[in-house]
Amino acid sequence: MKFWWVNHKQTQRQELAGGYLWSPKVEKNGSRSKFYDNMRVAAPGDFVFSYASTKIARIGVVTDFAVIAPKPTEFRNVGTNWGAEGWILPVSWFDRAIGVKPKAILSSLASILPKSHSPLQSATGKGNQKAYLAEVSREVFAMILGEINATIGDFDQRPTDGPSQNFVDKVEDLIEQSFASDPNLNDTVRSQVIQARRGQGIFRSRVLECEPICRVTGISDLGLLVASHMKPWRMCTSAHERLAGRNGLMLAPHVDFLFDDGLLTFDETGELRFSSRLSQENLARLGLKGVQPAILQPFHRDSVVYLRYHQINVFKS
Amino acid sequence: MKFWWVNHKQTQRQELAGGYLWSPKVEKNGSRSKFYDNMRVAAPGDFVFSYASTKIARIGVVTDFAVIAPKPTEFRNVGTNWGAEGWILPVSWFDRAIGVKPKAILSSLASILPKSHSPLQSATGKGNQKAYLAEVSREVFAMILGEINATIGDFDQRPTDGPSQNFVDKVEDLIEQSFASDPNLNDTVRSQVIQARRGQGIFRSRVLECEPICRVTGISDLGLLVASHMKPWRMCTSAHERLAGRNGLMLAPHVDFLFDDGLLTFDETGELRFSSRLSQENLARLGLKGVQPAILQPFHRDSVVYLRYHQINVFKS
Repeated sequence: MKFWWVNHKQTQRQELAGGYLWSPKVEKNGSRSKFYDNMRVAAPGDFVFSYASTKIARIGVVTDFAVIAPKPTEFRNVGTNWGAEGWILPVSWFDRAIGVKPKAILSSLASILPKSHSPLQSATGKGNQKAYLAEVSREVFAMILGEINATIGDFDQRPTDGPSQNFVDKVEDLIEQSFASDPNLNDTVRSQVIQARRGQGIFRSRVLECEPICRVTGISDLGLLVASHMKPWRMCTSAHERLAGRNGLMLAPHVDFLFDDGLLTFDETGELRFSSRLSQENLARLGLKGVQPAILQPFHRDSVVYLRYHQINVFKS
Repeated sequence: MKFWWVNHKQTQRQELAGGYLWSPKVEKNGSRSKFYDNMRVAAPGDFVFSYASTKIARIGVVTDFAVIAPKPTEFRNVGTNWGAEGWILPVSWFDRAIGVKPKAILSSLASILPKSHSPLQSATGKGNQKAYLAEVSREVFAMILGEINATIGDFDQRPTDGPSQNFVDKVEDLIEQSFASDPNLNDTVRSQVIQARRGQGIFRSRVLECEPICRVTGISDLGLLVASHMKPWRMCTSAHERLAGRNGLMLAPHVDFLFDDGLLTFDETGELRFSSRLSQENLARLGLKGVQPAILQPFHRDSVVYLRYHQINVFKS
């Protein structure tokens, strides 16, 4: 279990109410950021302190791994210089207010703050300007909670109002709502794009033309196949990408679930790659232990760009 | 392949535009109707003639088995004496207009109309008042299409605008829209009920309390489990039913798919029953051939009422 400290800056209200953290993938100049990379390190069960305006306001628990997501529309004009693409991490916040000002206990806190990539400047007690999601030690959590006579053990129950599973849905709802005012979409395309979110309509028809059989199980019965996006619907940047048959695969329902969740991907030759997060025991329970692709054939060149996106951005190696 | 003739009466416009047929389950006096029972006999690939106002207007092809569904809200005041619960059958209509009046060819048609449960009175050529979905012979189709110099073979292509897969979604969208004006739902419950449609939110939490492990595969990893309704969300008649933990099962994704689609159910003791529509070959491809329940235990008494609903109304024996 890890302990995280997020410096929300201007987005605390949305992120607490929405039950998530969102960061761009990279700095605005394109360089990597340890604080953004941490979004993909955080794992279910990790604790998070919510910090803004000099104060730790709340404590939460990570409820799932981060997924890629566009900048939440509810941020509106905040962070206009951030990239539009980023990571969203579901966090379930406990109701109990913390309300501790770290600066007030800086003399004891400074020595246990991390030496690099600290959320707080140990000299001044001010938030580190570059920090977003920073890792701290269990001792930092214990000390700050001690200020309100609380312990980490007080928060070992999952919050009752656990959202998280519906996170991708929430993000997709926001995107779908944005279509209503998109002058580039006529009614037909809007309807097709909305159907494509669930792998239906013209997207499904087009995928069926390209890849009519589940590559993993060999199932070809239409009633048992789901049309899945390689580049996820929520990350596509145009109706064209959302409706492209070459961005899709017909998969059996459990294979679709694993593929969507990044627990399974393919390489360009069609070989399977399972995530290390998927245990052999669960693979066996899914009937997929030691499975070889029923259809082993290289991906069409127009599919490879979408497949690579999946390998890099969706697959949890 | 079967040939069907639907007498739409007042709902032709909605059923042609929407790509479906809808009927109540039973007559208003509660008795069975052959014409309504036929909704569950129709199978993908069957042909349908659309008849109303003395004319066969269109031909369509059934694209999936019927599912249970409330009366479409777009019927508005039509059929107020029909039961609110019925069958919906997805039909993809061909664009080509037929425009044949059967009465005009009654002298040749009468002898090949079915002797019982005919869509048309063979004496008068008028639509049979009680008829909704009637089975007719291939010869009836051939004769009527012959009037416009067409043959059944002209319609052996699937219509290009194939909807159907999104049918349940469409029905559920209509229900969800109806919540916006439901004075019995406060914002919290409305949000919970909408999340429950996707097996999320408080519904999922409650199911996890009741049935935390997939009965079929034994999977207990939360990240691999879907919360599924026994009495389908779209058929529940209250927020209470939609949110009831005892109306749910946690299932692995492929098991959830089969259960939702009526290809799998359980008996009260927890034994599995697979639909005869699921081939042994596909069961094997899904890794479920010869599978025994990982957890064999009787259902809780509060679940049995929901389970029976699934056995009777969802399961395709």
